[in-house]
Amino acid sequence: VRSNNSSNKIVLIIEYEGTRYHGFQYQIGVPTIQGEIEKALLKFIGERRRVMTASRTDAGVHARGQVVSFRTQSDRSIQTYVNGLNYYLPSDIAVREVYKVSSEFNVRREARSREYRYCILNSMSRSAISRYYSYLVRGNLNIENMNLACQALIGTHDFASFLTGDMSNIKSTVRNVFQAVVKREEEMVLFDVEANAFLPHQVRNTVGALIKVGLGKITVNDFIEMMEERKPGLAGPTAPARGLYLMRVNYPVPFQEINNENL
Amino acid sequence: VRSNNSSNKIVLIIEYEGTRYHGFQYQIGVPTIQGEIEKALLKFIGERRRVMTASRTDAGVHARGQVVSFRTQSDRSIQTYVNGLNYYLPSDIAVREVYKVSSEFNVRREARSREYRYCILNSMSRSAISRYYSYLVRGNLNIENMNLACQALIGTHDFASFLTGDMSNIKSTVRNVFQAVVKREEEMVLFDVEANAFLPHQVRNTVGALIKVGLGKITVNDFIEMMEERKPGLAGPTAPARGLYLMRVNYPVPFQEINNENL
Repeated sequence: VRSNNSSNKIVLIIEYEGTRYHGFQYQIGVPTIQGEIEKALLKFIGERRRVMTASRTDAGVHARGQVVSFRTQSDRSIQTYVNGLNYYLPSDIAVREVYKVSSEFNVRREARSREYRYCILNSMSRSAISRYYSYLVRGNLNIENMNLACQALIGTHDFASFLTGDMSNIKSTVRNVFQAVVKREEEMVLFDVEANAFLPHQVRNTVGALIKVGLGKITVNDFIEMMEERKPGLAGPTAPARGLYLMRVNYPVPFQEINNENL
Repeated sequence: VRSNNSSNKIVLIIEYEGTRYHGFQYQIGVPTIQGEIEKALLKFIGERRRVMTASRTDAGVHARGQVVSFRTQSDRSIQTYVNGLNYYLPSDIAVREVYKVSSEFNVRREARSREYRYCILNSMSRSAISRYYSYLVRGNLNIENMNLACQALIGTHDFASFLTGDMSNIKSTVRNVFQAVVKREEEMVLFDVEANAFLPHQVRNTVGALIKVGLGKITVNDFIEMMEERKPGLAGPTAPARGLYLMRVNYPVPFQEINNENL
């Protein structure tokens, strides 16, 4: 019985610099991450395949650990995918890891959490090296107050106030935030957040509101009240995409622990 | 007596991504860091000035804390230089700090040490985000052995074996290395080195030889013997410029502690 082999499902862990892309999702006539991956797949395995993603990123947003999957009839060994696809992909997109998974595996539905990081350059002067990778905030940020506001984010809450952009597919604005913390590393202020899932622009609107707290423009109580009002667009302003990274997507069983031989 | 004010000396701390430049030093017809800074100075203070540097960097090498100086007749307040020059500089060069120094101050001669960092991406797959900022080495590097080799570098030694490139102005190949250490940070392997000064290509040839040690292609003893032979070009190969950063230049008195009012 070899019928299982007739359609393999492959998972790729992808890194990209989002600067020159119109977001993850395929659009006709403009460069997208999905479009580039599907083009590279066509060249490498000779099949026109749709890739699924764990977390769609907006235009300009970066990823260190995006997860995508696709089906294939190809029986190329999975070890060849990393170098094979990287050969065809542009230099600002890279396959970092590859795994074979069960054919029923769904990268979006089965993800338990997404981790995002936002990088604020907290300095009086702009940076050259991190110009595409951070957002410059000149005023001195109060990290302690920003972390007090972060405490209010943790748990299961209605995050409607942090929603802007495409609301067409939003059935519920309740999300479960597992972790939210701000830390200073030299001149960088990093916001790390993990949740089961995020609303459109949720992280960037959260960062916009946290910066207001950090600069003393609003109090931690103002932040909490804004959150409790549950009105789309109340939080913000939406921080620029260039500071945002999808760091990792977590699953019940890490891909590294899946025994490919048993599939 | 206001004669001192007729010529001020200004020091700039500069950051740049070296990718698109033919090195620091001015050359006709190609983009250089020095050329861009002098162009921005002409636009901002209206004077054609030659800038001096603490450490000339090669084509493609980056800097986080390059130090340059120039004289000016301008009486603009020094606070205006950061934003004023950053307005005219391209986005891959940034002035981070500015100081007024005594008119006899020489940024090259008075520097006590230069600190460089080399970033090796030690991974089986290429990176998108750090593609211009690191050098990919696929084999697993033995950090312990690399640090044993580093021990041999520390102190006052003849580094002739690590010299390649322009030797025309080299009077002595003896340098004093104060610090040399390799550390792993996730998939990055960082080499940090501080010396009174460096020979042309010294850091990149040291990295090339250290990588050979890390991959087990040569032993730590081979490394030490190579160093003791004192033959230009013996160490290497020259690691690519894109992994190298000038991190900082140190002076007897930090610029922050100079009392500008007394100059």
